Amino acid sequence: MSKQETGARVAARGGLSATSRTRHRRLREQGRTDRADLMAVLAAGFIAHLGVLVDGAPMVIPTSYGFDDETLYLHGSVASRSLQAAKDVKDAVGLACVTITLADGLVLARSVFEHGVNYRSAMIYGMPRLVTDPGEKLRGLRLLSEHLAPGQWDYARQPSRKELAATALLALPLAEASVKVRTGPPDDGDSEDAALGLWAGVLPLTSTWGDPVPDEGLPEGTAVPAHIAARAGTKAFQPPG
Amino acid sequence: MSKQETGARVAARGGLSATSRTRHRRLREQGRTDRADLMAVLAAGFIAHLGVLVDGAPMVIPTSYGFDDETLYLHGSVASRSLQAAKDVKDAVGLACVTITLADGLVLARSVFEHGVNYRSAMIYGMPRLVTDPGEKLRGLRLLSEHLAPGQWDYARQPSRKELAATALLALPLAEASVKVRTGPPDDGDSEDAALGLWAGVLPLTSTWGDPVPDEGLPEGTAVPAHIAARAGTKAFQPPG
Repeated sequence: MSKQETGARVAARGGLSATSRTRHRRLREQGRTDRADLMAVLAAGFIAHLGVLVDGAPMVIPTSYGFDDETLYLHGSVASRSLQAAKDVKDAVGLACVTITLADGLVLARSVFEHGVNYRSAMIYGMPRLVTDPGEKLRGLRLLSEHLAPGQWDYARQPSRKELAATALLALPLAEASVKVRTGPPDDGDSEDAALGLWAGVLPLTSTWGDPVPDEGLPEGTAVPAHIAARAGTKAFQPPG
Repeated sequence: MSKQETGARVAARGGLSATSRTRHRRLREQGRTDRADLMAVLAAGFIAHLGVLVDGAPMVIPTSYGFDDETLYLHGSVASRSLQAAKDVKDAVGLACVTITLADGLVLARSVFEHGVNYRSAMIYGMPRLVTDPGEKLRGLRLLSEHLAPGQWDYARQPSRKELAATALLALPLAEASVKVRTGPPDDGDSEDAALGLWAGVLPLTSTWGDPVPDEGLPEGTAVPAHIAARAGTKAFQPPG
């Protein structure tokens, strides 16, 4: 498998032109212009890093997310707290960049200079809005919950009106994004460093869901539901299907 | 094990006062004011999300890092490219926020509202500088390389003068930071939702280094060096020792 480190603008419903932020600036070894590449990264991860401005300085906040074809929904409670200096969170969110990164392994080359990481990442730019419509909020939270823990929305108690009001949900259009993927061996296999006779290759990194750990307070005999038990031993951060 | 979600300002050499950015804003169940907590997160991770301003908008860039007691060193090549709109990268870097997040598992509660993620994260704030001194650059790159792939700095070919010049390294003081950790079961074990009789607990996530994958072009019989072979099967993202 050959290496690739590529960027691509992903258009909503195809057709937007590249912006200066998302136009690819490095040699493209393999184009990733397909919207499916963005969706694959979103589907594989579950932690996003939300970058916003607070008092003129960048703040990068880890948070969970869900999505549909057009919108990324972010749990905004931490962001809201971080933005509390501003009177109105809705106005204060401003421009944002949301980055989702999955590390797949270390690239161990013949030279230190060529070392790196195999990864998949998506950077999404835009102006998030605070979701206020109760219907959209419920739908967005369901997307988020089902992405994080599929099956739990119907199994667990769903949010009360009070809980819904206490939850801050941000919505960011999936309209301007850049996807980068690097896979495969180091780049110096055909360089003069190959003659050094050093070992080179990749050290893969795999993430796995473990066995469910029951809360100590559970009544004896409370069964692990099938949708949770089925996840144990499966790989995380992998493309679906 | 009880849950905890805490924040703490970490002072360089102890003694800086909390800033408005890093003062903890939520109920503290267990304080994490020790600088060792910051170092533990830095030691466990290897991907940082660097948040900077580009043309007034936040950009969040995944990158590798290394560190010593006082300074975080970041591979700045991607950031430099992202900042290329500015004439002088050194001036353009400006204020930054670097966040390192390690996901340890899903918190599966009786109610959707109490669902969450067990995680460790560090947010470091400051003004990164572009490292120009060749001695510091070599030292910083060695820290970065040895953090990512211990043993490789001495095993692989070290950077040439030309490669050093082509590498952008950013240095950020470990002076202003906030550390948050959540561990343990969901928070609704003593709520009225406990009477619902639903299963609740944690689905742990574990990351493991796999077997080294040799570059196809290696001469036959090239042995995997011991420092790489020893890593196979060990857990990633864990505290050292």
